[in-house]
Amino acid sequence: MANTVEKYFDLVDQNQQKFIEALREVVAIPSVSSDASRRGDVVRMGEWLQARWETLGAQCKRVDPGKQELQGEVLDLPPVILGQYGNDPGKKTVLVYGHYDVQPALLEDGWETDPFTLVEKEDGRLVGRGSTDDKGPVLGWLLCAETHKQAGIEMPVNLKFCFEGMEESGSEGLDAIIVDEADKWFKGTDVVCISDNYWLGTQKPCLTHGLRGVSYFHLEVEGPGADLHSGVFGGTVHEPMVDLVHLLARLVDNDGRIKVPGIYDQVMAVTDEEEQSYEGLEFSHKALATDLKHDVIIHDDERMTLKHRWRYPTLSIHGVEGAFYAPGDKTVIPARVRGKFSLRTVPNMELPRVAELVTKYLEDEFAKLGSKNRMRVIETHSGRWWYSSPDHPNFVAAAKATERVYGVKPDVTREGGSIPVTLTFEENLKTNVLLLPMGAADDGAHSINEKIDKRNYIQGIKLLGAYLHEVAALD
Amino acid sequence: MANTVEKYFDLVDQNQQKFIEALREVVAIPSVSSDASRRGDVVRMGEWLQARWETLGAQCKRVDPGKQELQGEVLDLPPVILGQYGNDPGKKTVLVYGHYDVQPALLEDGWETDPFTLVEKEDGRLVGRGSTDDKGPVLGWLLCAETHKQAGIEMPVNLKFCFEGMEESGSEGLDAIIVDEADKWFKGTDVVCISDNYWLGTQKPCLTHGLRGVSYFHLEVEGPGADLHSGVFGGTVHEPMVDLVHLLARLVDNDGRIKVPGIYDQVMAVTDEEEQSYEGLEFSHKALATDLKHDVIIHDDERMTLKHRWRYPTLSIHGVEGAFYAPGDKTVIPARVRGKFSLRTVPNMELPRVAELVTKYLEDEFAKLGSKNRMRVIETHSGRWWYSSPDHPNFVAAAKATERVYGVKPDVTREGGSIPVTLTFEENLKTNVLLLPMGAADDGAHSINEKIDKRNYIQGIKLLGAYLHEVAALD
Repeated sequence: MANTVEKYFDLVDQNQQKFIEALREVVAIPSVSSDASRRGDVVRMGEWLQARWETLGAQCKRVDPGKQELQGEVLDLPPVILGQYGNDPGKKTVLVYGHYDVQPALLEDGWETDPFTLVEKEDGRLVGRGSTDDKGPVLGWLLCAETHKQAGIEMPVNLKFCFEGMEESGSEGLDAIIVDEADKWFKGTDVVCISDNYWLGTQKPCLTHGLRGVSYFHLEVEGPGADLHSGVFGGTVHEPMVDLVHLLARLVDNDGRIKVPGIYDQVMAVTDEEEQSYEGLEFSHKALATDLKHDVIIHDDERMTLKHRWRYPTLSIHGVEGAFYAPGDKTVIPARVRGKFSLRTVPNMELPRVAELVTKYLEDEFAKLGSKNRMRVIETHSGRWWYSSPDHPNFVAAAKATERVYGVKPDVTREGGSIPVTLTFEENLKTNVLLLPMGAADDGAHSINEKIDKRNYIQGIKLLGAYLHEVAALD
Repeated sequence: MANTVEKYFDLVDQNQQKFIEALREVVAIPSVSSDASRRGDVVRMGEWLQARWETLGAQCKRVDPGKQELQGEVLDLPPVILGQYGNDPGKKTVLVYGHYDVQPALLEDGWETDPFTLVEKEDGRLVGRGSTDDKGPVLGWLLCAETHKQAGIEMPVNLKFCFEGMEESGSEGLDAIIVDEADKWFKGTDVVCISDNYWLGTQKPCLTHGLRGVSYFHLEVEGPGADLHSGVFGGTVHEPMVDLVHLLARLVDNDGRIKVPGIYDQVMAVTDEEEQSYEGLEFSHKALATDLKHDVIIHDDERMTLKHRWRYPTLSIHGVEGAFYAPGDKTVIPARVRGKFSLRTVPNMELPRVAELVTKYLEDEFAKLGSKNRMRVIETHSGRWWYSSPDHPNFVAAAKATERVYGVKPDVTREGGSIPVTLTFEENLKTNVLLLPMGAADDGAHSINEKIDKRNYIQGIKLLGAYLHEVAALD
């Protein structure tokens, strides 16, 4: 295997400029899924991918998820491009997922250069919308396969792929397709690999084996039949907004401690093995504080910060609907307000139990207030956490591939956010899923001046290839 | 005097239908001051008033307060119409104030009939925008003078008037004119009367001798340099929104008690005389709860409700700027939020002291939180409370007039809100100011289906005339 992979690496190195040109070509297609006027570009991007894979010899299937209403128009959802490249019963089958749509971007948002024109900076940044999220990685799989062909190296595995064009807009229609194709197009998948997240820092590669879930709540307090004048009614009626701030303040302490009784009971204990896994991670409060512009970090210790990001539940308050929110002054007493908050959930919290505890606690606290207003708690959506063992062969293969490309053992990380498709694949295909990021922590995925470093892009293309070879070599 | 006044009353009764027609004529002019496209109608309404007073023989002066920017247009502010009707050095001089502009109104807001077409209902309601706020009372002064002339009765006082067209839009430009004319056009004013508020209930007339002030605050908490993803940063940074709800909850209890130390220290004590003044007022919790649609009243006792509306300071929370406020779910951690709250102030609170106590308390409480965020308190505006003795001759005259028209002693009331022009007249003209309402509590001044009852309108015109006669008869 060693020689074959080295040969692949050499050709990747030779092709660097060609790969950057390919990235330039796809960044130039403004496939913004949240903008109705760009829908044609999103579809065009999907068709570009399909055509290029078909030229290579892949068998593709375009699935149209249906329609959506957006900005007053009824639009066709962009296609999900399913593919199969190789079909050798003697090889393992790896399914890869990515998305070809991007976040909106306007020069006037503060971009240094036109967001849809890839610019190669002297410091190695390849700047452009979608460069890292997720066109770089999606292109990576294609370029990996093309380079194998060019080098005359046989692909070590059968590759299946699933590329969608709605990830930045809630992946509308995708889940139903995964459920439907689980025993059809996706049949025979041994492992899944998703390259759509980021390194913990900027220097050291990582593998990701866990994500938090999210349970979102509205806390509604309703009082009089209409908004009231605070001059006339202030101090004489129970104000919904006053009840609301009292209840919200009882949900979480200023240091992040959730005050809902029982909420920590189902949280997995920290084992010695886990405790050790935090050692040597590329993560520092100094870098974090620089990113945040102000040091507003709660914990003294880096490990505690990571634990609260990855493996403890947290509660954030997002805002209030129904109250005065504009600049300036308004003396109204709002009649009905909704506080919005969410909990990030972790192994082994059960979602219905979380909703039950939160609701019961808020009802008890509201009863203590002795208010004549009406209160209710609504769970508006929830998604489960995901946790996979980093010792699974799929991860072992990725770790070996990383060491080969970067010469270091990868950090083993979890993430605080959610990537719902991970769980959908795991549950429906009943296979292991690996998150194998290509980009770095400072890529600015949804921000202005999004970039992928040339190093990450080129080494990343090597990594994806090496990973496939390591999977093939597994017992 | 008695015969003269009876003769006036008789003619008012005979003129009822004519007076309703006059109200219909002015309601039909949609003088909405907040709507740039209606500015011509506002000016037309002012000119209508001036022309009709001049026809009667009044000397008028049109003062143009300048320009304003509204909805992208630079507009002339509507004129302030100053007038003088009678100039007999042997008579007292009464200055009356009112406004000829109105709130916006659209049929589709829920009006039963076109808001700018006065409709006389079978139950006695005269429904139309401005009928009670404030075209009915403004017309009342004119019809009073016209009826005196028609009856051949000499006006008992010199009447000065000041009618503005921007009251519903912050009285822009008015204060400067009052200051400027205090020793000129308004020179010689003995007392001021404003008819632009409402009875406490629906059956019993009242005189109003106090208003609360208002001090408005923004409580800003600022954390990281930009909004954060709650999946990544929830539980690891001090969230400005969490600090904010903790601070807001410490400002006021759910039962309306302000928690700022020292805030009640300057509040005037309740005297026995004041205590007695609450007896027999037309005010019931039953009617209030009906108005509110839900019984969310804090206090058990009607007196306590009125005391908290009129003579105790109160604190209301209006909303939050900078946080998520739209319907739906968003998982952002806002980087900078501003809580908006205001205090209603009462005799003898000093405004700078209020700001000092509030700021000090919030700074102390914020320090207790131990947050790394930055906090500041901004007082954005403040207006002083107004308090006048109900024993002043101006009020005695109004009480006598009320008894003569309605056959009952008027309720003596204060109000919870603010009418800033009251204080402007008192301070600059150095005369007593009386609030003498014409309409009832359920008129719906700023709401749909605004009305004035025919009884209040017709008896109100009698009341304004009788009041002028009683002022003339004062020693």
